[in-house]
Amino acid sequence: MRIVGVRAADGSVQVASLSGDGAKAIVLASLEEFWQDAAGYLGDAGRQDAAGQLGGGSALGDCLDAADVEFVPPVLPGARVICIGLNYLKHVAEGSFRDQELPEYPTLFARWTQSLTVGGAAVPVPADEAGLDWEGEIVAWVGDTLVDATPEEALAAVVGYSTFNDITSRRAQKLTSQWILGKNGDNSGPLGPLVPAAQVGDLRDGLRVITRVNGQIVQDGNTEEMVYTVGDTLAHISRTFTLRPGDLLATGTPSGVGYARDPQWLLQPGDVVEVEVDRLGVLSNTVVGHDARRTAAARS
Amino acid sequence: MRIVGVRAADGSVQVASLSGDGAKAIVLASLEEFWQDAAGYLGDAGRQDAAGQLGGGSALGDCLDAADVEFVPPVLPGARVICIGLNYLKHVAEGSFRDQELPEYPTLFARWTQSLTVGGAAVPVPADEAGLDWEGEIVAWVGDTLVDATPEEALAAVVGYSTFNDITSRRAQKLTSQWILGKNGDNSGPLGPLVPAAQVGDLRDGLRVITRVNGQIVQDGNTEEMVYTVGDTLAHISRTFTLRPGDLLATGTPSGVGYARDPQWLLQPGDVVEVEVDRLGVLSNTVVGHDARRTAAARS
Repeated sequence: MRIVGVRAADGSVQVASLSGDGAKAIVLASLEEFWQDAAGYLGDAGRQDAAGQLGGGSALGDCLDAADVEFVPPVLPGARVICIGLNYLKHVAEGSFRDQELPEYPTLFARWTQSLTVGGAAVPVPADEAGLDWEGEIVAWVGDTLVDATPEEALAAVVGYSTFNDITSRRAQKLTSQWILGKNGDNSGPLGPLVPAAQVGDLRDGLRVITRVNGQIVQDGNTEEMVYTVGDTLAHISRTFTLRPGDLLATGTPSGVGYARDPQWLLQPGDVVEVEVDRLGVLSNTVVGHDARRTAAARS
Repeated sequence: MRIVGVRAADGSVQVASLSGDGAKAIVLASLEEFWQDAAGYLGDAGRQDAAGQLGGGSALGDCLDAADVEFVPPVLPGARVICIGLNYLKHVAEGSFRDQELPEYPTLFARWTQSLTVGGAAVPVPADEAGLDWEGEIVAWVGDTLVDATPEEALAAVVGYSTFNDITSRRAQKLTSQWILGKNGDNSGPLGPLVPAAQVGDLRDGLRVITRVNGQIVQDGNTEEMVYTVGDTLAHISRTFTLRPGDLLATGTPSGVGYARDPQWLLQPGDVVEVEVDRLGVLSNTVVGHDARRTAAARS
């Protein structure tokens, strides 16, 4: 099962289940309804799919042609996208923090949901950047409220996982001590469909995470390498702020990013960047020039 | 004029204008409508107030008793709350970055809108913190779309300012290189009413920013001390990501925060913390124990 967001005619977002071949999307609920009971919808989706295919007249249960649909991330606008900065040991070793001791706690930075997009979207290079850097990774979706949770409670609240590309404006990221400017570029966070946690299992089992640029493998990691687990990290966060259904945790990227290479390699307009994760699928995006930012702003 | 958010019976948020004595709130628009034309609503609010007081039957123009209303920040859930970390020279000098050169660009960190609240709200101390730290400051509200803007264009897009308290969990903030965990505690970002930019004028004119704890002045700064202006900072941000109507810029705090004192002074349950800014008014909040986090999560 793969869960996606679709933009309805009135501009609102609905949550839908993709058919196996991806040609159809069956509407499950409004975005708000879905996140009020995500575990229920994910558990019931088989049943709801069947009902939807029988009676296509109503909004919920509608079977839509994927070709006619505008896909968007199934993300609540107010959700928090919490990102782990350094989680795969070999990526720590290649970056600018390599000479520092590994912190006891995960290094967390923030994305706003406005930076998120879907596979297929064009990602513009800001005017001041020499290019964009890739960071293939996995996102975990929180389905419940968590206050001072144990790692076990926190992991049990994860309802699904998605492929993610934490595309980075390195110049902006490194201008000061804090990274968030370079982590929130327009369309810089493509997110694949949500796959229910029950289908994915434990990330520590070892899922392969691959990033390709124009077909060439540039990152090839495995979730076994992760330093901080999803359960530990969410539990840790919940000691300071209350996690809510719909919040996301991006779990960090393996080694092989572009800025740490010699010579440096950054994405240029026309490049195609793909992230592929076992059990989660392939997420593919095209890089475009900075003019696309003005065009998009004028359209919206 | 002071603009606030009110929670309607159906849970949605409406934007209202407070009467001079604060006893009444006159509904101007839904939250989404307001931010589609904030400059228009702020320019027209005098006229709309009058119409509202005449015909109180409709939802828009309703004149509500402030005592019966649940106030919330007039913030779009998906808005970005971009915060300047070090902007008043004396605050730089008292903090852990004092031995480093002042960066050419503002140090920016992120809050999510879920951390925001209003004056009067109780702010819980997380279980792992020895207390909370105050940071009285001013927020600027963006009313337009900004891509690669000049400082002049960016400043012209600011439709209003509010008093803000960037209440901080210092332990969580300083666990790693990135600050955002300690900057997003529950109810940790109280925000005063929006005052139209035309009433406030230029922050460089010199607005006094005072923070009090249980009546005692702990911060007494002036916006003249600011290193990075609102226009320059928004223009800088717009080079990397597109600012949208409803986005917020928190402009940094003057010297006098609690953790830099000897002995250290942090807010404890029962303390009342107030931020007062010329032309923007007073924002007052009470600190409570960490149990309040579980109670609030159970209620929602």
